[in-house]
Formats: sequence, structure tokens, C-alpha cells
Amino acid sequence: MVEEKRRKLAVIAHGGTIDRLYCVFILASTATAMDMEVHAYFTFWGLTMLKKGALDKAGLPSTYKHMEEPLKEKLGEMKYPSPYEMLKRLKASGLFKIYACTPTMEMFGVKREDLIPEVDELAGAAAFLDLASEADITLFI
Amino acid sequence: MVEEKRRKLAVIAHGGTIDRLYCVFILASTATAMDMEVHAYFTFWGLTMLKKGALDKAGLPSTYKHMEEPLKEKLGEMKYPSPYEMLKRLKASGLFKIYACTPTMEMFGVKREDLIPEVDELAGAAAFLDLASEADITLFI
Amino acid sequence: MVEEKRRKLAVIAHGGTIDRLYCVFILASTATAMDMEVHAYFTFWGLTMLKKGALDKAGLPSTYKHMEEPLKEKLGEMKYPSPYEMLKRLKASGLFKIYACTPTMEMFGVKREDLIPEVDELAGAAAFLDLASEADITLFI
Repeated sequence: MVEEKRRKLAVIAHGGTIDRLYCVFILASTATAMDMEVHAYFTFWGLTMLKKGALDKAGLPSTYKHMEEPLKEKLGEMKYPSPYEMLKRLKASGLFKIYACTPTMEMFGVKREDLIPEVDELAGAAAFLDLASEADITLFI
Repeated sequence: MVEEKRRKLAVIAHGGTIDRLYCVFILASTATAMDMEVHAYFTFWGLTMLKKGALDKAGLPSTYKHMEEPLKEKLGEMKYPSPYEMLKRLKASGLFKIYACTPTMEMFGVKREDLIPEVDELAGAAAFLDLASEADITLFI
Repeated sequence: MVEEKRRKLAVIAHGGTIDRLYCVFILASTATAMDMEVHAYFTFWGLTMLKKGALDKAGLPSTYKHMEEPLKEKLGEMKYPSPYEMLKRLKASGLFKIYACTPTMEMFGVKREDLIPEVDELAGAAAFLDLASEADITLFI
């Protein structure tokens, strides 16, 4: 008898711009739809985007700043879900777990109460390394 | 008897600047020379660089813009192959497969006929996650 | 009897800005504290930061340039170790190995004697791919 195990995707969400946040959320949505567990560890700029109200203000990096308005218009026309809406749908799947990086919180003076309530756990890098060692796919985004 | 299996490298090519594109192509060239299969999934800025004519216009990100001209001169002196030349040599190896990310194509209004003919497949994130689950190395570049 | 093997983390350190360098060094410090081996392959902007004197001048990318001074002040207040101090502590663990990417050295005209003495090995991408094939976790930062 073969034991069926759910596949795992571990992501370090380092970027704070929509081109990276959408990658995290689109990969995670696809993975949860494939019945994979997704563990997303938000660090650095990614962590700052977990502050209340931040996700929906995310823009593009300087290199592509001129494409921010046209891209946002296009996403509006497509009725594409916003990053925060995607995060909430992911949480509803029961397969998406959000970790907030504690060393970053200290560096940026961010407190638990500053973060959106969907964050599951405050964790250091050790927790992530243990998760990633067990994961089928690990990405730094 | 041990079954010999070709090792696999799966890459998400997210960046559209030459510092990232050369990383994708140099790692892929080395990998195919080692008889590894390489699966490169071009998404976001990476996808936009698969449009006809785009690869050879790739530059550096804003942070390093001042180094673009000197770097290009140096690469010229070294007779370094251009990104598109590298991609074509990779295809000739028979071990390099290019996927174009369909959600990005929709976001940026890119059609199949806008892309270089070397693209093997249009695919969503699910195809990539299946590939990456089987890969020996997965990188998000 | 189960053979106990030290877990391995393989990192491509591509970024040359402190938000990425600290990620490399914090993950590596945590990993070595967990008795993991860490193999860090410095390429592109990461390689340029191995030049003598470079690491401690690292700043933030253009997108976040306005946060460079406040972040450096905060790190000073926290008496946070500098990137180069972290690298030296990592070397002292005996579990951290630094590779300098030879194709990048050629592109940027960097010579062995320009690099900090802590570099263990000059290596091409093939060495990294072999390491990463064996690693428990591989990250491109």
C-alpha cells in the first residue's frame, strides 16, 4: 500500500511589488487547486506588504514604473482579483499558511497588531528551513 | 540494475533584464552540456522578452542602469553570444524546452504570433508545478 | 540503522543589495546553527559584492532607495552585524562555503586578488548545478 501524501510548495515571498506578489498568489492558487499545501514565508518587502492596507497599494518596481498604470487598468478591465482578495481566497482553501518573518518585523519596527489578521504564525528562518527541507518545490520570489 | 534518469532543471524566468536572462541561459547551457533536461517557464517580464525582437533589446534594471553601456561593450569585446543567440543554441541541444505563461499573456495582451517561434508550449502554472515537483533543481530567476 | 546526513542548503547569491545579501546571510546563519551545510555561489551583482570593501557599502535597490538611510540607522541602533561581519562569522562555523562565479568575473573584469580572502573556490555553473542537485533546499536570491 502506497501512502498518499499531499505535495508541498514552500515560498519565500521577499518582493513587495505586484509583479512578484501576483506570482506568489497565482502559483499558490494553482497549487491549492491541485490539492498541494502552500507555505508562504513573507520576509523583507514581502513582510511589509502584510501590514493592514498595504497589499492593495502595491505597485511595480522602478524599472517598470511606467507600466504600472496601464497594467492596473488592464487588471481592472479583466476584473482580476486584487492581491488581498487572492490572499483571502487562498486562506479559504484551508491549504495556504502565512508566516511573518520575525527578524524583518524587528528591523522595520512592525508589530503583530499592524499585520492583517490572515497571518497564521510569526516565525524565524529556522521554521522556514524545516518546512523547505520537506517541500517538493521551494521558491524565493 | 539501476535505472539512469536524466537530471532535470526547472526555471521560472520572471526577470526581463539581461542580468537575469543571462543567468537563465548560462545555467541552462551548462545544464544541457551536462546532459540535464531544462524546462524554462517564462512569466511576467520574462514572458514579455519572448516577443519577437525583445530579447536583444534587454537592458539592466534601474539600480544598475549606469552599468548597461560598459557591460554591453565588454560583452561585445568578449564576443559573448547575445541572449537570443544563446536561446537558439539551447534549442539546438534538444534538451531545452520553453513554456510561455498564459496568464501573463492575457495580462499583457500578448498573442502566440507575437512570440518567437522557439516557444514550445503555452502553459498555465499547473504545468510548471507538475514539472517542478519532478525536478532535481528549481529556481525562480 | 539509518545513516544521518547533514542537510544542505545551496544558494545562488545573485543580488548585490542589502535586502538580498541579508537574506542570504540570515538564512545561512540559521542553517549553520541547525547544523546544515551551506554552499553559496555568488554570481552577477552578488559576485561584485565579494570585492574587497564592497559588502559594507551595499545599499538598497532604486525602488526602495528612500528607505536606505532609515534602515541603516535602525540596524545601527540594533547593533545588527554588518554583511561582512555576518560572512566572517559564517566562515567561522566551518559549515559555510563561498564560491565565486568565474563567468561573472570575466564579464566584470574581476581578478582573484580583488576578492575578499574568505572566498573558498572559483567555480563555473557546473559546480553549482552538481551541488544543487544534492541539496535539500536551493534558492536563487
